[in-house]
Amino acid sequence: MERNFAVILGVLGKPSDRFMSVGYKTSSPTVFERIQTAARIPLVKGVELIEGAGDDIHPGNKQAVKSALDEAGLELAAVNPNLWGEVQWGRGTVSAPEAAIRRMAVDRIKTAMDLAAELGCGYVGIWPGQDGYDYLLEADYQKMYAWWVEGIQQAADHLPQVRLGLEYKPYEPRAHSFIDSATKALLLLRDIDRPNVGMTFDVGHALYLHENLGEVVALAQREGRLFNVDLNDNFGDWDWDLNFGSAHLYEFIEMLYWIKRTGFSGWYSADLFAYRTDAARSVEESLSWLNAMQDFVDRTSLEQFDRLLEAGDPNEVSRFFRSALFPA
Amino acid sequence: MERNFAVILGVLGKPSDRFMSVGYKTSSPTVFERIQTAARIPLVKGVELIEGAGDDIHPGNKQAVKSALDEAGLELAAVNPNLWGEVQWGRGTVSAPEAAIRRMAVDRIKTAMDLAAELGCGYVGIWPGQDGYDYLLEADYQKMYAWWVEGIQQAADHLPQVRLGLEYKPYEPRAHSFIDSATKALLLLRDIDRPNVGMTFDVGHALYLHENLGEVVALAQREGRLFNVDLNDNFGDWDWDLNFGSAHLYEFIEMLYWIKRTGFSGWYSADLFAYRTDAARSVEESLSWLNAMQDFVDRTSLEQFDRLLEAGDPNEVSRFFRSALFPA
Amino acid sequence: MERNFAVILGVLGKPSDRFMSVGYKTSSPTVFERIQTAARIPLVKGVELIEGAGDDIHPGNKQAVKSALDEAGLELAAVNPNLWGEVQWGRGTVSAPEAAIRRMAVDRIKTAMDLAAELGCGYVGIWPGQDGYDYLLEADYQKMYAWWVEGIQQAADHLPQVRLGLEYKPYEPRAHSFIDSATKALLLLRDIDRPNVGMTFDVGHALYLHENLGEVVALAQREGRLFNVDLNDNFGDWDWDLNFGSAHLYEFIEMLYWIKRTGFSGWYSADLFAYRTDAARSVEESLSWLNAMQDFVDRTSLEQFDRLLEAGDPNEVSRFFRSALFPA
Amino acid sequence: MERNFAVILGVLGKPSDRFMSVGYKTSSPTVFERIQTAARIPLVKGVELIEGAGDDIHPGNKQAVKSALDEAGLELAAVNPNLWGEVQWGRGTVSAPEAAIRRMAVDRIKTAMDLAAELGCGYVGIWPGQDGYDYLLEADYQKMYAWWVEGIQQAADHLPQVRLGLEYKPYEPRAHSFIDSATKALLLLRDIDRPNVGMTFDVGHALYLHENLGEVVALAQREGRLFNVDLNDNFGDWDWDLNFGSAHLYEFIEMLYWIKRTGFSGWYSADLFAYRTDAARSVEESLSWLNAMQDFVDRTSLEQFDRLLEAGDPNEVSRFFRSALFPA
Repeated sequence: MERNFAVILGVLGKPSDRFMSVGYKTSSPTVFERIQTAARIPLVKGVELIEGAGDDIHPGNKQAVKSALDEAGLELAAVNPNLWGEVQWGRGTVSAPEAAIRRMAVDRIKTAMDLAAELGCGYVGIWPGQDGYDYLLEADYQKMYAWWVEGIQQAADHLPQVRLGLEYKPYEPRAHSFIDSATKALLLLRDIDRPNVGMTFDVGHALYLHENLGEVVALAQREGRLFNVDLNDNFGDWDWDLNFGSAHLYEFIEMLYWIKRTGFSGWYSADLFAYRTDAARSVEESLSWLNAMQDFVDRTSLEQFDRLLEAGDPNEVSRFFRSALFPA
Repeated sequence: MERNFAVILGVLGKPSDRFMSVGYKTSSPTVFERIQTAARIPLVKGVELIEGAGDDIHPGNKQAVKSALDEAGLELAAVNPNLWGEVQWGRGTVSAPEAAIRRMAVDRIKTAMDLAAELGCGYVGIWPGQDGYDYLLEADYQKMYAWWVEGIQQAADHLPQVRLGLEYKPYEPRAHSFIDSATKALLLLRDIDRPNVGMTFDVGHALYLHENLGEVVALAQREGRLFNVDLNDNFGDWDWDLNFGSAHLYEFIEMLYWIKRTGFSGWYSADLFAYRTDAARSVEESLSWLNAMQDFVDRTSLEQFDRLLEAGDPNEVSRFFRSALFPA
Repeated sequence: MERNFAVILGVLGKPSDRFMSVGYKTSSPTVFERIQTAARIPLVKGVELIEGAGDDIHPGNKQAVKSALDEAGLELAAVNPNLWGEVQWGRGTVSAPEAAIRRMAVDRIKTAMDLAAELGCGYVGIWPGQDGYDYLLEADYQKMYAWWVEGIQQAADHLPQVRLGLEYKPYEPRAHSFIDSATKALLLLRDIDRPNVGMTFDVGHALYLHENLGEVVALAQREGRLFNVDLNDNFGDWDWDLNFGSAHLYEFIEMLYWIKRTGFSGWYSADLFAYRTDAARSVEESLSWLNAMQDFVDRTSLEQFDRLLEAGDPNEVSRFFRSALFPA
Repeated sequence: MERNFAVILGVLGKPSDRFMSVGYKTSSPTVFERIQTAARIPLVKGVELIEGAGDDIHPGNKQAVKSALDEAGLELAAVNPNLWGEVQWGRGTVSAPEAAIRRMAVDRIKTAMDLAAELGCGYVGIWPGQDGYDYLLEADYQKMYAWWVEGIQQAADHLPQVRLGLEYKPYEPRAHSFIDSATKALLLLRDIDRPNVGMTFDVGHALYLHENLGEVVALAQREGRLFNVDLNDNFGDWDWDLNFGSAHLYEFIEMLYWIKRTGFSGWYSADLFAYRTDAARSVEESLSWLNAMQDFVDRTSLEQFDRLLEAGDPNEVSRFFRSALFPA
């Protein structure tokens, strides 16, 4: 399996939430400091950057940031427009109720695509966290669906060589995200119908929707739509963005089997909120877990996994895991 | 709105569960007794029957049952093959691991279609409760998907004039149902690609998956795929199959707005487990709630709902509901 | 029933969250502006203030704030120390791992009690949002329990005439709150064993834990421990802090029956996050719903409710609600 | 740690559910056959029996069953009255609405206690699955609480040398169980206030309530109330009663740390529904996982766990688990 391990650079910054709005940490490192930190984390080969005037990368610093990445020996894995944290996006982006906002959002995606292409990066992640609804009778679901299809088609056609990844999430910050599940995303991708548009798969989002990670990969890869994997973990109840590997194990191993079987070769990006832990250590632990799990799946032949599926006997699976983790 | 109200006839029988396997009631009324009971429930115009050797209808009693329905003045709304409660289906039907079982399941659907057609009924509901998986690494998700597409295509082509409705459900009796959400069902319907195959929508299944009922109708009707609505209620945590209207209100009203806007004209069938209540009274209450809500939505013009959506102001929606339910 | 309706003054400010850290609104009204706003909202009789150097009330503005409340004709319902949004509390307050932080937290509660008493207010709400744990093997649960008992006893004994209300919440911002349910709070209150310590009951916290609101009131009032009610709503999946009354109805009515039956006479405080709505209007709607529901419960005799409970027939309850909300 | 491993004998029988009422298996082994099967499962030292006219043990077969256990070399771990599967219990037992049923239930517990004592067994488990409510305004929560206190006190005083274990469960078969959480049970145990009454802890019930298993043990053992542990697993969404160890790992290890630290010495009983697996193999796998986890916790010193808790650094916990499960 490919070991394209990255970190979303904001993970190394200063996290806040609705209660601790001043932030959980006392310092707020610059993008250049965070690049230095990322470079020191074992296993990290690339970074994802947020594009925006107040964010990681923008016209005013793009060359300096690219130079810093080059010096640090880090690849640019993705350039993601900030579609969630600027006040104009409060009620949505590509499916906002106001037409002017929707146009701005599509333009913004194009801007990020241009910037990515300019910097030699072929990927733009789209997480439309503000698109959805909080209350009943607040939104017109058919219009929202149509806006997503049209908007993303326009963006996709702007630069066909840049790939766009839609990231679904059940909810938060909206009480209902519009693109809220793997199959909603896949349905939408059918209607968008562009080869350069696929899925960014945040494993934590699937876990708290009680989707099965392996099944998400299997279904997305039926159509070749798995473009990117975001790493974190939770207890199945909310998007805690804990260290990857801190809560689940077997689900991740099954997911890696499907990744191996279907030949995914994109980036795995640590996407955590290290509110109360050392962020660099949390990233290191997360990637070390992924690495160990990949080693395990690579040591196990695809045939052995296939035999388990073929047998369909949960007791055999139980013995398989137990003998691997707790050898006599 | 159409007021095609029905009851699934088994609702009037003797319910059991995994703990009370002897059943919660002391008598087990025959299909003929249950037809008599159904005929006495206000608002009931039709019934759904389960097809099977030990169930409501089968070759040995089909004429007698049809006669009883005619005499009782009840329409036959659906003939649903028992794909969940016969021992051969324990590990699945159309996507069972064994090819012989899969063939039996498709044949069984065709049998129910033939029976429906013979009795002048145009609808067969398919609830594949046993299809899915309980454990990780137990099932091959890509094969299961393909089996569903092929199997339902074969059934659909058998009698194109009979409509088939796939009923999704998040889980139970399997820990993961294979057809587990509205968008999974819609994705599958794209690949099945037959005009006579659509969705049976059990509102309780959506509620405990935290789907929004109105959005499900909106998305299904974008493609004209809402064929049938099953009525019950729960507290968002499990498929309790409580009386319709006993837990939710606003969700149902929004759903009915979308039903009216998109022109659904199929059956609404009470689908309850009246473990500890009088079943006929529970059906009566359920249909009375639906009737009252339909009256309310019919009294409110589509334009008024449209204006609320257009305004997108939850405080206006709040005032709308409050002034309707608690007039000063 | 008492109609002591209040608003937590911060509700009228500028909300942010972990994604929109700049805030969802463009202005951030001062405490004095928010008092003016509160005074204009129909039904509002009192306010809850947050105590803290950067918050609503502190030594530097206490007289001015009290004067502003008096001029506005608003009562001071509670003075709540900010135990969640100052950086020293990131890993907890009364049960923080560091002894020095725990002492600071208890002192801080005493400070808020002194301030409350000085301003003629008899209530201090304690919401220990940061107390809990995110990961397994992170915390010593027995020590935490003991710290809560000791810490709150010390605070309670500081000024026995001021009442303290512990507010439980399942989770957020910690993945596991320590005081996470009504019965956990009641168990702790047994060990704290002080007459001036009881429960602040946030109805939204109960709803997303799938507690039944009426049962919470019934159990808390067996011991006379319901001190305060916080108002908001959600869909049973997270603490959305939506307008009270926007998602649930029957649960609130049952709760008000138990409130009436057990004689609760404290404050009801709107505790919302009006991210994308006009906050004053959201408070007005919330209190208008409560008022309408109280009217309904007051119109219905306690005897009628008692008869429903005595009969224990859900179909009678169904008819009761239906005939009230949708009279023929 | 003690390795008192048992199986609830019904696990080896024929399971059914509300959809597959005929049962998932074709044969229904007798109690004697199931004793033979249990004796052949590695690690099994004892069994729990269900007391009832149609169940494992009753006056008509008690000597024969005891003899069969003795011959098989199996200890009798518990005698549990069937309080869920006889038609008179449909609306509850110790807290049923009818006084006559409540008396029958208390008498039935006494009968089971007498039988246990006669057979040299000191434990009676009480799982009141039918006690609770399905609908709002269906039950009087204060009366139910009082009935539980009085009823269990009466039973406990009948034979003080026999221990009673109350087993809580969030819900099912009732939409709300009355004894629904660990802290509800502990609160009730305070009021029952008898040394021979404690808690039967079904780990699956805690998991789908999102309780933390280690914390449940810590809190119950503060008061010495953990009497018995029931083993199974699920995905945090429902009481699937899957093989123990098939879904969770770290939660169980933390639980065993607390068990070791607090000195629990009772039985661990496999409590599964092996609908679609070989039941004996599922029990064997479950107990093998527990055994392997106990080995792991025993190899790790209490001091090492204590140091992790003292440090409170999730990254250290992460490294601890990773180096143990995936040594370099």
